[in-house]
Amino acid sequence: MAEPTNLTRIGLAGLAVMGQNLALNIAEKGFPISVYNRSTSKVDETVERAKKEGELPLYGFHDPESFVLSIQKPRVIIILVKAGAPVDQTIKTLSAYMEKGDCIIDGGNEWYENTERREKEMTELGLLYLGMGVSGGEEGARRGPSLMPGGSFEAYRYIEDILLKVAAQVPDSGPCVTYVGKGGSGNFVKMVHNGIEYGDMQLIAEAYDVLRTVGNLSNEELQSVFSEWNKGELLSFLIEITADIFGIKDDKGDGHLVDKVLDKTGMKGTGKWTVQQAAELSVAAPTIESSLDARFLSGLKEERVEAAKVFKSGGFGDILTDQPVDKQKLIDDVRRALYAAKICSYAQGMNLIRAKSIEKGWDLKLGELARIWKGGCIIRAIFLDRIKKAYDRNPNLANLLVDPEFAKEMIDRQSAWRRVVCLAINSGISTPGMSASLAYFDSYRRESLPANLVQAQRDYFGAHTYERIDMEGSFHTEWFKLAKQSRT
Amino acid sequence: MAEPTNLTRIGLAGLAVMGQNLALNIAEKGFPISVYNRSTSKVDETVERAKKEGELPLYGFHDPESFVLSIQKPRVIIILVKAGAPVDQTIKTLSAYMEKGDCIIDGGNEWYENTERREKEMTELGLLYLGMGVSGGEEGARRGPSLMPGGSFEAYRYIEDILLKVAAQVPDSGPCVTYVGKGGSGNFVKMVHNGIEYGDMQLIAEAYDVLRTVGNLSNEELQSVFSEWNKGELLSFLIEITADIFGIKDDKGDGHLVDKVLDKTGMKGTGKWTVQQAAELSVAAPTIESSLDARFLSGLKEERVEAAKVFKSGGFGDILTDQPVDKQKLIDDVRRALYAAKICSYAQGMNLIRAKSIEKGWDLKLGELARIWKGGCIIRAIFLDRIKKAYDRNPNLANLLVDPEFAKEMIDRQSAWRRVVCLAINSGISTPGMSASLAYFDSYRRESLPANLVQAQRDYFGAHTYERIDMEGSFHTEWFKLAKQSRT
Repeated sequence: MAEPTNLTRIGLAGLAVMGQNLALNIAEKGFPISVYNRSTSKVDETVERAKKEGELPLYGFHDPESFVLSIQKPRVIIILVKAGAPVDQTIKTLSAYMEKGDCIIDGGNEWYENTERREKEMTELGLLYLGMGVSGGEEGARRGPSLMPGGSFEAYRYIEDILLKVAAQVPDSGPCVTYVGKGGSGNFVKMVHNGIEYGDMQLIAEAYDVLRTVGNLSNEELQSVFSEWNKGELLSFLIEITADIFGIKDDKGDGHLVDKVLDKTGMKGTGKWTVQQAAELSVAAPTIESSLDARFLSGLKEERVEAAKVFKSGGFGDILTDQPVDKQKLIDDVRRALYAAKICSYAQGMNLIRAKSIEKGWDLKLGELARIWKGGCIIRAIFLDRIKKAYDRNPNLANLLVDPEFAKEMIDRQSAWRRVVCLAINSGISTPGMSASLAYFDSYRRESLPANLVQAQRDYFGAHTYERIDMEGSFHTEWFKLAKQSRT
Repeated sequence: MAEPTNLTRIGLAGLAVMGQNLALNIAEKGFPISVYNRSTSKVDETVERAKKEGELPLYGFHDPESFVLSIQKPRVIIILVKAGAPVDQTIKTLSAYMEKGDCIIDGGNEWYENTERREKEMTELGLLYLGMGVSGGEEGARRGPSLMPGGSFEAYRYIEDILLKVAAQVPDSGPCVTYVGKGGSGNFVKMVHNGIEYGDMQLIAEAYDVLRTVGNLSNEELQSVFSEWNKGELLSFLIEITADIFGIKDDKGDGHLVDKVLDKTGMKGTGKWTVQQAAELSVAAPTIESSLDARFLSGLKEERVEAAKVFKSGGFGDILTDQPVDKQKLIDDVRRALYAAKICSYAQGMNLIRAKSIEKGWDLKLGELARIWKGGCIIRAIFLDRIKKAYDRNPNLANLLVDPEFAKEMIDRQSAWRRVVCLAINSGISTPGMSASLAYFDSYRRESLPANLVQAQRDYFGAHTYERIDMEGSFHTEWFKLAKQSRT
């Protein structure tokens, strides 16, 4: 095994896709790095890549002890293994050789409470701990991810120089990293980032569905539409790769690859956690919920095939209309609907982060989070700059929707948005995310909701009491008795 | 304190609204009952009521020891206190005087895992334990609730005679009680019952909103519409009390009371748990989610008032149209939309119960659950008979929507449903529950969803792999590389 002549600056354990690429990125930025993995072939593979990709200062180790001892003190080790038990196992293995003042950074998609538990355990050993969200996939990890470190501020300061260089760099906005906050805040913010990512992907899929199914656009047309969109307000990584996808031909047959991909979407847990936390914190997050539900329903492929048969045999087809549509008008409408629905989704995610920040006393800066998402991560988009500016204008903004700029954008787009959702509904395809977003918008901007009836019902059957619009206090009415009297 | 000359058959501790009424119900059915409450005034109050309501065999105790000792062995004590710590406290107090073979029944809305923990703890003391969902509010508890007992089958058998008489009685269908299953299954089923209840209430509120806001119906007209609906397929407790509510005049001013009730809906936790469990179990439950979100948004009254101002100042009012509508046609459409959306909501709830039953090995009988909900509980409705019959026809029914009878009903109603949702959208009011249900319906009956694009995106940025529609296996494509090649 190669040994560094001097001690390295940092270590990284866990050399799957994300780990390998992040290690190479760190080495490329000029920080000598030690790497370790339980199955040693990954170590050799990474060392090999480091050579090929420019003789990078990366040193591989096959045993944990020499790995840890190869790093300069105070030692910093990033671990990138599967969330949950593997993280505990890796910490146990490595901490055996670590010393007071050393630091462990978990870069996985970990549940924030696990990070808080581990931070406490580490503190007892005299070790520092960070839970750091890393977004950007394979490419991001290699070229510059968005980094969301939370936990020990002391540990953050010690590696800040590395993170600032390793993170994605956005002109006029700086590196996509900031100290998020205490405890598990880095993981929590990354979790919500992923929930927003679910929402974005679902909304794009619905735009695709309307254009292809109702608008009859070909993959070539879709590619050009999404490429065009990527030059304007929707400019973003996800729109860009969507355009790319429509251009890829099937290497195993005729036509385009996207048409051969099975309509079953996998998931890894962060979207689920986001929805559960929204419920826990009493934050409405219908767009993100609809994207999770869409994944669940996509998974029921066999049931759907059967259901389609049942309804077809009842004379009721998948698609209910083949009215001719004005393609260009539809494309413009869908673009506006997508943008408006996206604002709602981000409003939900941001409010979820704020609710948690208040609960935990994390004091998170929403505008700063929007800034570090501008590059590197999966949801990177020009639009995040508008969000940052909205919070710069008013850090206490109750909801993105009421920022004057966004409110204006919503008003400009709402007619198109309603047309698209109704067109989808009348075509029998429905757009769960766009319509959930629209209902969110219409509910949030509405002074009086029909919730008065629900509260009256609750007081009727459960004596839950109600408030009144015209006087202070809590009231209960014997609805049943009064109704019985009026009947007789 | 009055002492029974003989020992009583059963005891009940916790004499808030539900406890008092259930104790009186049990006494009225001829089972001598001992009652106890920590604050003793409630004991005296209940004893007083028992006298007034027909010299019922109900005996009050001011201390836990004489309360427990007044009950015949093996002793059965129902506790009806707030879920969580108060239940543990009450168990601790009472179990000190209980003996091997005695049984405690928690009748509160408890989180099912707490029941499973307590059942284990009780077993160690030689005591039996049941977690029993009780639905029906104050009136139900007094006249006949729906009971969902889960846990020790031995304990259930010992008090079955009481439960069968105390529960609501439905002609041709029997008493609304059954042994639900092991462990926390009784609580879990009650939790989902409440989630469904949230959905029902939200859908009714939306029907009300469309009729009042778009259809301009007066409260008198609403009362007659809901009374009429309550004679048909929508016949149910919630429709009945809704009709009642529209008839109640404000006792503190002019007009109808419902118009004075503040549009802020409270909640108690079971709806939240339902949504979190749906996410946990990968079951799409968009209707129930939308009802929880609607409660969250209703709670933001002050923010909504401000938001309404922001949008109005942008020239954009709450309500976007005042097109004349054909009232009778609208009423008929809304009735159909409400019924169809309701089917979706129950389909989600039932599938959630099934998913949990499979996970826990509870072997729950969905048709039998529909039967015990036919009377006594808040969601009681004639419609539950159709659900029971659907599961009688096919106990393995994948989804209520594909039962031949329900499928036919959905096809008959889908046009009206789409009209109502689009009318609401174009009026700027949106119907979150009805449109979430519709999206659920359209997604579930659709052979091919746009999830192929989402999976392609996931493989593009995260190498998550995908399946194909035309061959077996798991595939990964270097989308980025191919796109780069095709660009050059």
